[in-house]
Amino acid sequence: VTDSALTTRIKVINPNTSLAMTRLIGTAARGVAGVGTEIIAVSPPMGPASIESHYDEALAVPGILHEITHDGMLGERIDGYVIACFGDPGLDAARELAAGPVVGIAEAAMHAATMLGRRFSVVTTLGRTTGRAWDLASHYGFREHCASVYACEVPVLELEEPGSEASSLIEALARRAIDEDEADCIVLGCAGMADLCHRLSQNLGVPVIDGVSAAVGMVETLVRMRVSTSRREEYARPRPKVYEGLLEPFGLTV
Amino acid sequence: VTDSALTTRIKVINPNTSLAMTRLIGTAARGVAGVGTEIIAVSPPMGPASIESHYDEALAVPGILHEITHDGMLGERIDGYVIACFGDPGLDAARELAAGPVVGIAEAAMHAATMLGRRFSVVTTLGRTTGRAWDLASHYGFREHCASVYACEVPVLELEEPGSEASSLIEALARRAIDEDEADCIVLGCAGMADLCHRLSQNLGVPVIDGVSAAVGMVETLVRMRVSTSRREEYARPRPKVYEGLLEPFGLTV
Amino acid sequence: VTDSALTTRIKVINPNTSLAMTRLIGTAARGVAGVGTEIIAVSPPMGPASIESHYDEALAVPGILHEITHDGMLGERIDGYVIACFGDPGLDAARELAAGPVVGIAEAAMHAATMLGRRFSVVTTLGRTTGRAWDLASHYGFREHCASVYACEVPVLELEEPGSEASSLIEALARRAIDEDEADCIVLGCAGMADLCHRLSQNLGVPVIDGVSAAVGMVETLVRMRVSTSRREEYARPRPKVYEGLLEPFGLTV
Amino acid sequence: VTDSALTTRIKVINPNTSLAMTRLIGTAARGVAGVGTEIIAVSPPMGPASIESHYDEALAVPGILHEITHDGMLGERIDGYVIACFGDPGLDAARELAAGPVVGIAEAAMHAATMLGRRFSVVTTLGRTTGRAWDLASHYGFREHCASVYACEVPVLELEEPGSEASSLIEALARRAIDEDEADCIVLGCAGMADLCHRLSQNLGVPVIDGVSAAVGMVETLVRMRVSTSRREEYARPRPKVYEGLLEPFGLTV
Amino acid sequence: VTDSALTTRIKVINPNTSLAMTRLIGTAARGVAGVGTEIIAVSPPMGPASIESHYDEALAVPGILHEITHDGMLGERIDGYVIACFGDPGLDAARELAAGPVVGIAEAAMHAATMLGRRFSVVTTLGRTTGRAWDLASHYGFREHCASVYACEVPVLELEEPGSEASSLIEALARRAIDEDEADCIVLGCAGMADLCHRLSQNLGVPVIDGVSAAVGMVETLVRMRVSTSRREEYARPRPKVYEGLLEPFGLTV
Amino acid sequence: VTDSALTTRIKVINPNTSLAMTRLIGTAARGVAGVGTEIIAVSPPMGPASIESHYDEALAVPGILHEITHDGMLGERIDGYVIACFGDPGLDAARELAAGPVVGIAEAAMHAATMLGRRFSVVTTLGRTTGRAWDLASHYGFREHCASVYACEVPVLELEEPGSEASSLIEALARRAIDEDEADCIVLGCAGMADLCHRLSQNLGVPVIDGVSAAVGMVETLVRMRVSTSRREEYARPRPKVYEGLLEPFGLTV
Repeated sequence: VTDSALTTRIKVINPNTSLAMTRLIGTAARGVAGVGTEIIAVSPPMGPASIESHYDEALAVPGILHEITHDGMLGERIDGYVIACFGDPGLDAARELAAGPVVGIAEAAMHAATMLGRRFSVVTTLGRTTGRAWDLASHYGFREHCASVYACEVPVLELEEPGSEASSLIEALARRAIDEDEADCIVLGCAGMADLCHRLSQNLGVPVIDGVSAAVGMVETLVRMRVSTSRREEYARPRPKVYEGLLEPFGLTV
Repeated sequence: VTDSALTTRIKVINPNTSLAMTRLIGTAARGVAGVGTEIIAVSPPMGPASIESHYDEALAVPGILHEITHDGMLGERIDGYVIACFGDPGLDAARELAAGPVVGIAEAAMHAATMLGRRFSVVTTLGRTTGRAWDLASHYGFREHCASVYACEVPVLELEEPGSEASSLIEALARRAIDEDEADCIVLGCAGMADLCHRLSQNLGVPVIDGVSAAVGMVETLVRMRVSTSRREEYARPRPKVYEGLLEPFGLTV
Repeated sequence: VTDSALTTRIKVINPNTSLAMTRLIGTAARGVAGVGTEIIAVSPPMGPASIESHYDEALAVPGILHEITHDGMLGERIDGYVIACFGDPGLDAARELAAGPVVGIAEAAMHAATMLGRRFSVVTTLGRTTGRAWDLASHYGFREHCASVYACEVPVLELEEPGSEASSLIEALARRAIDEDEADCIVLGCAGMADLCHRLSQNLGVPVIDGVSAAVGMVETLVRMRVSTSRREEYARPRPKVYEGLLEPFGLTV
Repeated sequence: VTDSALTTRIKVINPNTSLAMTRLIGTAARGVAGVGTEIIAVSPPMGPASIESHYDEALAVPGILHEITHDGMLGERIDGYVIACFGDPGLDAARELAAGPVVGIAEAAMHAATMLGRRFSVVTTLGRTTGRAWDLASHYGFREHCASVYACEVPVLELEEPGSEASSLIEALARRAIDEDEADCIVLGCAGMADLCHRLSQNLGVPVIDGVSAAVGMVETLVRMRVSTSRREEYARPRPKVYEGLLEPFGLTV
Repeated sequence: VTDSALTTRIKVINPNTSLAMTRLIGTAARGVAGVGTEIIAVSPPMGPASIESHYDEALAVPGILHEITHDGMLGERIDGYVIACFGDPGLDAARELAAGPVVGIAEAAMHAATMLGRRFSVVTTLGRTTGRAWDLASHYGFREHCASVYACEVPVLELEEPGSEASSLIEALARRAIDEDEADCIVLGCAGMADLCHRLSQNLGVPVIDGVSAAVGMVETLVRMRVSTSRREEYARPRPKVYEGLLEPFGLTV
Repeated sequence: VTDSALTTRIKVINPNTSLAMTRLIGTAARGVAGVGTEIIAVSPPMGPASIESHYDEALAVPGILHEITHDGMLGERIDGYVIACFGDPGLDAARELAAGPVVGIAEAAMHAATMLGRRFSVVTTLGRTTGRAWDLASHYGFREHCASVYACEVPVLELEEPGSEASSLIEALARRAIDEDEADCIVLGCAGMADLCHRLSQNLGVPVIDGVSAAVGMVETLVRMRVSTSRREEYARPRPKVYEGLLEPFGLTV
């Protein structure tokens, strides 16, 4: 895995600045990556400590885009990107910038779920983020595949706290989705839940899907298929232009 | 219109940093504002010179949010906001922050169009932005009301250039939408086209809708109805948290 | 407001023949109308005492159309019309006839609701009318924005009776919509509920929307934008023709 | 077919007052009716000479409803009704009133078409009525089954005129639908086209569907199944109430 | 009914091999068939004893297709076919083969239900088949007309057993659909329930629809309209080709 | 790749009996498979020589199901299955039977396409199969992502013939999709086109997607995620039962 010229290099961007979560995400990604795939898990140098609102999500995007343009400027070869926040922040913009394919974890998890059963339910952190999950389900085409979206009301950074009840709350909500909403699979609605995936799956008796794993597999698939984002028009490289003020460094040149 | 305690104060945010366009937008807004409504047209102190990609749009959002939080910090009373870029950037996040209602110009224009005929078509600037227009039409519920989206391929900041052919290109595309796609109305797909609205409407013989005017009217309506964004859950004020690096000023406190 | 040449004149048609409700509707309309807007609230001289079925709704339409053609024949300038019954009866036909824009109160209320939150619920009078509310939500594009439609089972003309429990029944159903269906806003499903709007909003803590107010604001917006119904084809003036029997007076001439 | 106690009696209401069209519709209906089914084809004593706008359609409804209530008052047994205008005017209201099932000809034709191929196209009279056809397709669930709606721009009452080019215009549009829009079947968009059905079908080589025939067959099917409109709530008999003015005769009593 | 040259001959294929169910289906079909219509109820000589999974359904299709090609080879005139299993197995393939129209019982029942009320619910046998019912509702255009799908968890071949509680279980689920899901009609989700139809309808007070009856009526309607499946492209006769192994007899020749 | 205990074993079923195509499919599959993944490409011992109609597709299913049950009976470990025909025949039934995940090539190709651009178009073999492609797009949630489906009218088994114009016909249709329908990517609508993928992609300048490659990547992803089809209800193992006649060998036992 050290000879980078031969490996597939997947960069997994945790869009918040919590390094503990970045490590957890990296571990999940490596658990599913193929032989010869290198996972580079990073957090951007700017942005929110966690993403729990439309406000946080919007402001996580500059950091994600910085990570991608920076790779380009440094000449660092990255074969594909994963955006590891369940709101898939900045996915369209990232696709305009990155040389290789970019996959969001909500996108990948929902796609995978539809191949495993008729309906999936999402269990996420805060109730205020469930609207975004529904928006994404609609956007990706899965409005009718999504049976329900539940929130355990545990903030993102408390998921991993010792003694946290997050795991049992999530399991209870997943059971409700299975029993009341006829969900065939459960999609975990936060990258910070990746470590719970296999245990929950065993306890619940249905597939439980971690988006980080799904996204790594899908971006690897695209890389091996030798395809990347279409450059036809919408996702062509943005036109160069001046950026002002605090965001001046984001101005693209030819 | 000077006694601000009695007036309705609508802030119209042009999310790019082009002041000429901000002036044009302000003029359009004042043309439709009611007696006793003050229009404050502004550009943020940061961000792209124009918005012509998902990348530009994502990076226009911090400036929009800055404008709103800044009003809050200064204790400046703003009764409602208009986001004056046809991609409606940052609309959800702005709704979390602003005390009063927030309306996007694509949103307002599409809503207005559906009250004037069965189908509308959008004529916008660059082809690469048509995807966003379709996304918004779907998101607002108007996928089947939107007959087509055309691009004149004139960049935003060249719309106003002396000798620009933008106006005749837009008119030709609008005619095509009317003749081939059975569009009953035309929606102008860029705030920078606001000044063309009445002449195009006369030439084409169908309603032509400028989103700035529509949004000012709709946000005024909401203000007079004494309603604002629901605070139930999704659009409640974001949780306070630390922001890092370049975006450190965006950290909210209690 | 007396110099009609300078004012905007909005005619609000209560399609039933109950004058007490017409007065209540007029009051709601004036509460939101801009400076310089005159509200003319009327009931037609023919039709049902209240509208509580498809049958009543269909038979309320001749009176609405009579009001509009009569204005035309008398040369009375009306800048825009509001149809103030939550089934939006005769809206398409009214648009063919009226010189200015026409807005229905269900239409306006639903449009406004989608700008204030992700989901709205409707609370209406009789259960037998909820189907029509769903049809309108679908027709306007808001099927997925509409979380639920509830009926308080109080007939229209009993809403205002002294000692009526309508208000508390409506509030209870609204709470259920908020708690169980995650409604962000409540839409009042009858023009006769307009006077309850502000108190319900305060009690419930979410926006409550009266369609009469919303429609007056929206039709004013369209008038100020100087746009009206597209005359392209579907909404052109109907072809003149003979009408027979009881409906002979409805025959249009060139 | 004379012993009415043993026959199934289907009343086919031509909602316009043109008796020549009523005769044509009656002939089409009898051509498909089963042994032992009596067709009663009528025109109402009030309403428009033809239906070519939302205005005409709305004002055709009182006559339709009059026909049904009159049957009830006279104690005349009618086992099922067909509303023989392609806009299906007053269908919901008619279902509230009639003792037996009621089927519209657009409804029946579209249902039949979906059983004969993947896509159908409608060929109708005037362009201004195509919007209504799309609305009905959506309402019945067939938005994606409907490939296109074309208008021959021949007014309803000129379809039958000697020397009319209607037939060849309709055939040309049908061919366009088949060739360009991949229509598998053609739905005739006006009851007045019923007599063209078989010849067009032979010329075009695909099924051509006359809604009058389809509706008679479907209402007969429902009668033989011994089912009628559900009386659960929405389609229960309307509440009795006072009607005023010209429409006073429409007031229902208990 | 004996002079087959004059009769309409409808073949009703029970796709499972249970002859008791074939008899029950034949009785239901004859109960609704018109004077002069002959019902030929059959079971194929191959396939599953009952259809309770995607596996069973897929493997019921060869037998259905055998029945149709066999009629063709024997020169037996069949004017139309009904596929009498609620999953509508092999419907598209059958339409390619049969000379006359082919209707499935789920298709016919759902179509009929939408003419009798706003919403229908399906009550079927096993929970594992409810997904197929939802797929069909979507496919036919009735996703929004279908309020719910319930399963009584009685296997198909136990429906008719003496002492079976199927009838009371089905009635209880139907009541739940009416009370909780606002279903206006009930669709019976298995051909083997046809004999329960009228009693359930009386007990529940809403229309209960047996798909066998509905399909016989609809296919008769199509035959009398002298239309059959469009041969334009998709449903043209399949190209002749070699079949191998066990399925060698299915190879079509020119 | 020889120590089968350590490898991931993916069985790729070509549902027709043409071995040349099976070899081509195996080559495409191996081109994308990860290190340590063994591809077993097979054709069933029964069924059609090629799949070009609903009839062929329905009769390809027994062979597919035979392949899966046979693996089970022989105790052969297969970690995941790919169904390599663009109609995804028997996918639901295969999921009930197989121990590991099952992915169809149309499914996988469409999923992949949506991660590479806004719209994809399908280019397939015969026009009569385009309906099935639309059905699948709808079923998987991608109706609005699918811009068009074109057919080159080359039968499946002639795609590979020396001197075939298939490749240039496909390229011309793909260009039309890109230019006229704004397709961002092209999906190849037949497993027999897999070998054209990379060259077409280079010629067209947009991603061209071969479903075999996409499906192998996706099923590998699911296997590495350690998830398989949910056994909750719909996709549980079918109930054992007797099968009769020609299909007697398909009867499952406990």
